[in-house]
Amino acid sequence: MTNDAIEQYCREHFDELVAGENGLVGWLQIPSISASPEHAGDVRRSAEWLAARLRAVGFPTVEVWETGSLDGSTPEGLPAVFAEWPSDDADAPVVTLYGHHDVQPVDPLELWKTPPFEPTIVGDDLFGRGAIDDKGQVLFHLLGLQAHLATTGRTSPAVTLKVIVEGEEESGSVHFRRLLEDHRDRLACDVVVVSDTSVFDRDTPSICTGMRGLTDCQIDLHGPDVDLHSGSFGGAVPNPLAVMADLLAGLHDADGRVTIDGFYDRVVMLSDRERELFAKLPFNEHGWVHETALSRGTRGEAGYSTLERIWARPTAEVNGMWGGYTGPGHKTIVPTDAHAKVSFRLVADQEPLEVQEAVKDYVARYDRDGITATVTFSGPGVRPCLTPLGHPALQAATRAMEKAFGKEIRYTREGGSGPEADLADVLTAPVLFVGVGLPDDRIHAPNERVVLSQLRLGAQVAAHLWSELAEVKRT
Amino acid sequence: MTNDAIEQYCREHFDELVAGENGLVGWLQIPSISASPEHAGDVRRSAEWLAARLRAVGFPTVEVWETGSLDGSTPEGLPAVFAEWPSDDADAPVVTLYGHHDVQPVDPLELWKTPPFEPTIVGDDLFGRGAIDDKGQVLFHLLGLQAHLATTGRTSPAVTLKVIVEGEEESGSVHFRRLLEDHRDRLACDVVVVSDTSVFDRDTPSICTGMRGLTDCQIDLHGPDVDLHSGSFGGAVPNPLAVMADLLAGLHDADGRVTIDGFYDRVVMLSDRERELFAKLPFNEHGWVHETALSRGTRGEAGYSTLERIWARPTAEVNGMWGGYTGPGHKTIVPTDAHAKVSFRLVADQEPLEVQEAVKDYVARYDRDGITATVTFSGPGVRPCLTPLGHPALQAATRAMEKAFGKEIRYTREGGSGPEADLADVLTAPVLFVGVGLPDDRIHAPNERVVLSQLRLGAQVAAHLWSELAEVKRT
Repeated sequence: MTNDAIEQYCREHFDELVAGENGLVGWLQIPSISASPEHAGDVRRSAEWLAARLRAVGFPTVEVWETGSLDGSTPEGLPAVFAEWPSDDADAPVVTLYGHHDVQPVDPLELWKTPPFEPTIVGDDLFGRGAIDDKGQVLFHLLGLQAHLATTGRTSPAVTLKVIVEGEEESGSVHFRRLLEDHRDRLACDVVVVSDTSVFDRDTPSICTGMRGLTDCQIDLHGPDVDLHSGSFGGAVPNPLAVMADLLAGLHDADGRVTIDGFYDRVVMLSDRERELFAKLPFNEHGWVHETALSRGTRGEAGYSTLERIWARPTAEVNGMWGGYTGPGHKTIVPTDAHAKVSFRLVADQEPLEVQEAVKDYVARYDRDGITATVTFSGPGVRPCLTPLGHPALQAATRAMEKAFGKEIRYTREGGSGPEADLADVLTAPVLFVGVGLPDDRIHAPNERVVLSQLRLGAQVAAHLWSELAEVKRT
Repeated sequence: MTNDAIEQYCREHFDELVAGENGLVGWLQIPSISASPEHAGDVRRSAEWLAARLRAVGFPTVEVWETGSLDGSTPEGLPAVFAEWPSDDADAPVVTLYGHHDVQPVDPLELWKTPPFEPTIVGDDLFGRGAIDDKGQVLFHLLGLQAHLATTGRTSPAVTLKVIVEGEEESGSVHFRRLLEDHRDRLACDVVVVSDTSVFDRDTPSICTGMRGLTDCQIDLHGPDVDLHSGSFGGAVPNPLAVMADLLAGLHDADGRVTIDGFYDRVVMLSDRERELFAKLPFNEHGWVHETALSRGTRGEAGYSTLERIWARPTAEVNGMWGGYTGPGHKTIVPTDAHAKVSFRLVADQEPLEVQEAVKDYVARYDRDGITATVTFSGPGVRPCLTPLGHPALQAATRAMEKAFGKEIRYTREGGSGPEADLADVLTAPVLFVGVGLPDDRIHAPNERVVLSQLRLGAQVAAHLWSELAEVKRT
């Protein structure tokens, strides 16, 4: 296979990927909004549509998987689609490809220039809900796989390819982890490929190499058992709001570093090379601050750039706090209680449960002298993930991207985390983020679009990817 | 006049003070609840009742004063009663006596052992709403004045006596300051006597010598113009909640002292004598903390006792704070805004407006790097008041108390302030707190009572007071 051959194949067959009932346009006509119960039937139709396409491409195994109640007895969730195509090569690595076929709601509808479920092509843009997030990015793999087979003359992929496309990503992936655990054996793989992300910008193709993890909690402080008159008692009894202010202010030192004991112990430091690569990205910080964040300044840990702060450094962030009198006018009380919600973004190799223990110790220091301090975590948290720059699978993905884009591939990270973190966690495999979205594709917003030339490049990347990954020795 | 004569007079005429239509029992039958619009007529009846009694005692001038809308055009408030009895002695000092004739609501009614407006005597206790707060403490002055005249053989009081008894004290005295300002000339005096307080305890008669002042504000911090995803932005943009925590935590140093520049500059330090007198008070700190405050500990400014902290030291107290996500579950955002309500208790000679300027400077330090910080005060604040222990009027009141109680009189202060602060401020006269309530009279609670023997002692104090004050040279 040559780069030229793949490009040619993808150009020649690109219309089939996009047009008609069996193309992206047909899929985008199905309003598979997972957050709306009235669209549950559409999400099912969307799953069936994809299953039919996977069969048409040649996957010998294609199944629609129901997702269910926590005890698995009755399906209550929305279906995922599973497919598998074993490689003829018995030594081939196993890859599990992740995407989702449900879409975001469309409100506010009046801001759409074309109806969200009537896909419309204008120049190089195809407008429609789900165009890039994530139907387009799932579908380019089908053309990519066909190109891979056609240009290599193979009758099966160079890797054993498993596909899992869920139907609840836009409504919190509530059943996804359970689904992974239930089907852990069938989904087992050497590498996970996630196609649900963007490149840095149109001129800067890139691969995301890591996502921050998360753990979050609510902190409750209890002081006097009744609201006290601040004239009669103020100055002599502990005020839970003042103690909460101390507790929250104490989370950071003057350099913006988190003060919790041991918080940074496991943090993988940024390598000089990665910092250098981040610094070379054409990051428009002014635009990011003033137009994207609608903020009027930046603030964070001393010694790190904005990209480093959001991608590669852990945080403690106060998400909410409340207590005492919050109505109009004034009420001069020493209140009974103070509350705060605090979340911690984590980076490799921090362990959420270890961080939780450290946070408990920190909060316990405020449990004294008339203040009862408790902390409750919302769950086990989400592990951060990171694929080291030198990882052979990442290098393979980089080569595939380079061949398709004809450019140097840059590396980014993501500041948050999605259900993909569960993939790494349950399947204990590295995650490669291979996506071709653009930052201005308006995902989750009116007038979502996919740029058709990016979609074709995605197919070309996919066509190269299986060959490149096949060359990586199984770990 | 002799002490014995006054005591004998008060004993002989005590029944007239208490019993029947024209006694305290009759007044307590009028449910003059100022907070309930449906009782407005009762508050008016209560004012007329008192006016009739003042006329019966001999006051040549008795007027019911309407309180009104802010422009004074129409009466919207509840009436106060004014009376004046000039002394025949042209050089006599002028005293304005303050009390209130409205009462607290009675909920929860089911906790009353006797109906709140059916005054009931059990032993030495007279139960009923308003028995001590404040009808009993207003009424003992009438018997006291009669005893004063009878035992001195005078036909007018030894001081020119003015009486102002308001009808809105239990609902915030909303029209009281305006009333004082409108009638500033007619209420002008050398000394204000307030009868609406308690003694330290039954065995420890005392006089309150000062009240803390107050100013309060709302602080608002604004950060990003939209709630931001803490994964994508957290760690790199200013978080208004974290900044608010810094701001509030920074209000105090490690010793519990307020850090605002100049905050203590005008504070009158406690004298060694006053500290010594406070320390000798039979203060049950354990009971105060655990039974009254329902707290589990004390906390405050280093180097001061609990009584010193609540009576004689200024404070900064967070009364409320809120911002970000405060619902169930979690929402990992960097929020747009943070808010807090903060009040400052002030002691002599702090000036509320000066403190406000200092607070504005403090808050302004947080107005930077993407955070807009504003502070709004609810009004001009309330000045603290303090009668120095050596003040001649205070010594006169002390002698009157000593003669009635036959004991050493101790000195206390109050941590808060009521409408009495406006009296000192508008009339620019020192305030004497002459009250005989007991700490366990259950004011504002079910089963409020007045101890009849305390009421008689109050009349005796009043009978002595005008003679003692007449001996104080006019300032």
